Amino acid sequence: MTNASSLALGIDVGGTKIESALVNPSGTVVTTHRHPTDAARGPDRVIDDLVTCVQECLDQSADDASVAGIGVAGQVDSETGTVRSAPNLDWTDVPLQERVAEALGIPVHVLNDVRAITWGVWQHGAGRGVDDLVAVFIGTGIGGGVISDGRMLHGHRGTAGEVGHTTLVADGRDCHCPNRGCWEAYAGGWAIAERAQAAVRQDPEAGQTLLDLAGSRDAITGRTVNEALAQGDPLAHTLTEATSRYLGAGMTSVVNTFNPERIVMGGGVIEGHPAHVDAVAEIVRERALPPARQRLDVVPSELGGQAGVVGAAAYARHQG
Amino acid sequence: MTNASSLALGIDVGGTKIESALVNPSGTVVTTHRHPTDAARGPDRVIDDLVTCVQECLDQSADDASVAGIGVAGQVDSETGTVRSAPNLDWTDVPLQERVAEALGIPVHVLNDVRAITWGVWQHGAGRGVDDLVAVFIGTGIGGGVISDGRMLHGHRGTAGEVGHTTLVADGRDCHCPNRGCWEAYAGGWAIAERAQAAVRQDPEAGQTLLDLAGSRDAITGRTVNEALAQGDPLAHTLTEATSRYLGAGMTSVVNTFNPERIVMGGGVIEGHPAHVDAVAEIVRERALPPARQRLDVVPSELGGQAGVVGAAAYARHQG
Repeated sequence: MTNASSLALGIDVGGTKIESALVNPSGTVVTTHRHPTDAARGPDRVIDDLVTCVQECLDQSADDASVAGIGVAGQVDSETGTVRSAPNLDWTDVPLQERVAEALGIPVHVLNDVRAITWGVWQHGAGRGVDDLVAVFIGTGIGGGVISDGRMLHGHRGTAGEVGHTTLVADGRDCHCPNRGCWEAYAGGWAIAERAQAAVRQDPEAGQTLLDLAGSRDAITGRTVNEALAQGDPLAHTLTEATSRYLGAGMTSVVNTFNPERIVMGGGVIEGHPAHVDAVAEIVRERALPPARQRLDVVPSELGGQAGVVGAAAYARHQG
Repeated sequence: MTNASSLALGIDVGGTKIESALVNPSGTVVTTHRHPTDAARGPDRVIDDLVTCVQECLDQSADDASVAGIGVAGQVDSETGTVRSAPNLDWTDVPLQERVAEALGIPVHVLNDVRAITWGVWQHGAGRGVDDLVAVFIGTGIGGGVISDGRMLHGHRGTAGEVGHTTLVADGRDCHCPNRGCWEAYAGGWAIAERAQAAVRQDPEAGQTLLDLAGSRDAITGRTVNEALAQGDPLAHTLTEATSRYLGAGMTSVVNTFNPERIVMGGGVIEGHPAHVDAVAEIVRERALPPARQRLDVVPSELGGQAGVVGAAAYARHQG
């Protein structure tokens, strides 16, 4: 039996969709609803849509929620829940927490979306039971969240954990951020696509399988590489091995920096090629400082796409 | 007026010397004593020498200490104060906290020496007044300590903060640790010496000033580079600029990872060429993620060589 106060709302606001979920204390999603994000119409309209999305989610359940957590792809002031900047939504200084709390009449807590996912992984996913956890999500970009001694790290302005923007190759490949040679610029999804396209440009013959699968060089993505790999394509194999090595080199930095007990790896790049996890674990075992790697697991995430809403709900429940 | 309970002992145990200091609550050293470390005679003898060193330090003061902190160059179990491994002392599993507490009859707290220095910088040095601090010490190697949201990070096995062993150049220069291309392997003192020696080997004519100052190629150190720089030597200028760039690239990772409010830079490389601090600040301003660099100071350390004992004493006082 659930009652009103045992359920929490988890909300994920991204550039393409808003997702709401009613989540029980075990981290199970009871009901869920999605709504497209129409960022071009401005924050007021997106917040209206968010509230509508939440109502439709609640309408599916007999119970209410006692608290709501919102994960946003952007920089959040952790005290006020104001979104300082969210480039995908074109938001600057939007008082999201205040606005949604007014509309829903329950306490609301806003945090960065990757930190929300990390919280979900920690409370209800593959990071359960440890006090020192780093969660790394390798999708189009690379994001991360850090739990140290049982506490989530936020940093001075809420951006701690941006491990994707650690320098992996000084003066290396251009990143989408102001730095060069970032980990993300080698092992993130966009970088895998660029590296594959460059390899095909350099040797079109070797790249024939990739070209056939994608239709054109510019259409080659990380997914194309995975498809070619499944067909035994040697270039896809070379590219994927390089991605594993880049992932391992960057993860060695993570291990030496944070000394976690467990690392959870998730995101589209990992889901597309789960063998990266074991490859990274092996590189870390060889390369990390011995005391930092002594008691360390490197495991895949379990929660998949639900981690964001489950984590936002669990975070809100924790904050109260 | 001081009284017995207001003073704390700070002790630093390194491979060459043991240093004890009686420190008041403001972080001022009241009395101090040094003793050479004779690690070859084993941990029992070193602990006896440590206790003697402390007694001689106390003998100079009319007051006693109420608590003692010990910084050790090694891996420390933060709960028991046992030194798990200290390569410079050739120690494995030495119950230092228990042994010294028995001998002195006061509570003793043991921590890694770089974490002790960080604590000193935070409480009594250039890191005062902030909740999010990273202290980076660039000496022979590169070590670091992190305060996040008002708490020191230890990690699962006490080694968090080893930022010197983040990968700066994937598959780059060999490091003294199992990794390759570490930050330390480019910008640590030993690496600066190796890079200078390699530059002289490659172009002995350009390296004449360095050769003249050091006597031989193998004798060139970071200090030689600083001396040559003071004489306007172009190769020393090139090497030092590269060191600044490496320091800046690695510090960009630190900023993006931890989002500190302040970074304090200390150690022999910085004391030998303080201009590195401003150069790093400029690189970080250009390269770090905008929200992570918005409110960030990069400043030199103030405490110099006393940070270790002052920090160990302050840490012990805090632990009680």
